Amino acid sequence: MAKPIVIALDAMGGDRGPEAVVAGAEQSMARHPDLRFLFVGDQGRLEPILAGHAGVAARSDIEHAELVVAMDDKPSEALRRGRWKSSMWRSIEAVKSNRATFAVSGGNTGALMAMAKFCLKTMPGIERPAIAAIWPTVKAECLVLDVGATVEATAEQLVTFAFLGAAMARALHRRDRPSVALLNIGVEEVKGLDPIKRAHANLRAMTLPFDYKGFVEGDGIGHDAADVVVTDGFTGNVAIKTAEGTARQVGQYLREAMEQSLLSQLGGFIAQDAFRILKARMDPRRPTAAFSWGSMGW
Amino acid sequence: MAKPIVIALDAMGGDRGPEAVVAGAEQSMARHPDLRFLFVGDQGRLEPILAGHAGVAARSDIEHAELVVAMDDKPSEALRRGRWKSSMWRSIEAVKSNRATFAVSGGNTGALMAMAKFCLKTMPGIERPAIAAIWPTVKAECLVLDVGATVEATAEQLVTFAFLGAAMARALHRRDRPSVALLNIGVEEVKGLDPIKRAHANLRAMTLPFDYKGFVEGDGIGHDAADVVVTDGFTGNVAIKTAEGTARQVGQYLREAMEQSLLSQLGGFIAQDAFRILKARMDPRRPTAAFSWGSMGW
Repeated sequence: MAKPIVIALDAMGGDRGPEAVVAGAEQSMARHPDLRFLFVGDQGRLEPILAGHAGVAARSDIEHAELVVAMDDKPSEALRRGRWKSSMWRSIEAVKSNRATFAVSGGNTGALMAMAKFCLKTMPGIERPAIAAIWPTVKAECLVLDVGATVEATAEQLVTFAFLGAAMARALHRRDRPSVALLNIGVEEVKGLDPIKRAHANLRAMTLPFDYKGFVEGDGIGHDAADVVVTDGFTGNVAIKTAEGTARQVGQYLREAMEQSLLSQLGGFIAQDAFRILKARMDPRRPTAAFSWGSMGW
Repeated sequence: MAKPIVIALDAMGGDRGPEAVVAGAEQSMARHPDLRFLFVGDQGRLEPILAGHAGVAARSDIEHAELVVAMDDKPSEALRRGRWKSSMWRSIEAVKSNRATFAVSGGNTGALMAMAKFCLKTMPGIERPAIAAIWPTVKAECLVLDVGATVEATAEQLVTFAFLGAAMARALHRRDRPSVALLNIGVEEVKGLDPIKRAHANLRAMTLPFDYKGFVEGDGIGHDAADVVVTDGFTGNVAIKTAEGTARQVGQYLREAMEQSLLSQLGGFIAQDAFRILKARMDPRRPTAAFSWGSMGW
């Protein structure tokens, strides 16, 4: 029998408390009944919640942690101030000590990256971590990385991000041979920053377990130019926040246009199902496999 | 009597030929009857067009140019291959030789920047040129620069872009004391790339003819965080193309949602005025003072 998959859950991470984390675990278990959970957080709060979810409780353990990393803690502070007492750190530490297969936290992204890197280090051959975002596209979804962990990335780091992104696309989107592109300001080889041009040359020269498509521009991400788009953490963060802001802005334009006359209000009322569909496609909290713009909560 | 303003117009620049350039001049003249024009381009094509626009023709001269810079010419090629014969170069040259007050071209942006820099140089104290984009916001418009002329910008160059953008906001948007912000990946001083952090410190320490607001994130641009947002050409180009792509993407989501049932189609028909208003707000070619996403045509 294979060893069971145990997910360490930072029960205190995220804006909606341990209730949401336990409810999420229950949904996961419905799809993957063999999962086990290690809830890390305030035992006094977790026990009564789990008592109301007998199915999850039967396949779970609780590990008490007295501190919570706040959403606005600086990563460096979170690492200093009694980190070993925090639910985030203890979730990650459970992976290191082999009590969990992997850890999940909906908490402070910067602190999570810092703690994970400090506690678990990176894989051999991977110098720097990356945060991957699931970016909704016209037809499906695109993985964009890095969106904020490695602000400046060397050519070599960008190449490793391409491998990381391709591995994620294989696991998450079931693509045998995902397509991968580098974000740039033109598709010609002469344009762009030096690390990007060198990463491009390196990828062109390598035998790869994915399809390297060359450069993609900002408007290609949402229009299915590639399964994975690689960039440095600064550019990726600006891009995802700009996309998020633009989607909200167009949404507001639409609301204002629909409210401008009685006739448009009537039309909007009749077409309300369409607006519900539109909203669901743009909503970061839709309950599918996809997260969305802004889902990472930083 | 003040010297008249003479606009040198690259009559061959842009996707829609000299007809559109002459028609544009006519619209400008309707608002500013004292303008004069110098149309630079193929004399054989320009003369019959101007014959059909007597009002413009009476206040215009033609300067023949036998070459046209193509939209896909590389800037370096455009500078090499007989540039002095091109309508773009000769329009810029008319400014240098004081036959025109300024030059306008709807042609190849990269070539235009290269030729303008080569022919006119930059102002004293300004090391590098910037391309400014007019970015539609929820309430009005924001000037974003640079969006592609200076791919890597030093702290000092970013500071000069702040001055250039503020001057443009004063002239174009009639703001006495425009607000200016630096694009970054967080509002805290510890985050971001080194040139941005140093530009921030420099701006904080200077007496400025504008209100320096500190950092803004990608989603702040379209939500009126500042009148002017300053960034390097790489980041600005990725941001504007991402915004453009996202606006088109949400537009497509909306179309698909409205077509999903007969009821939503009926609602959409009744509310068609609202969709016309929405489209106008998102359309790069709307005939107001504002251009919009994608208006720069590169």
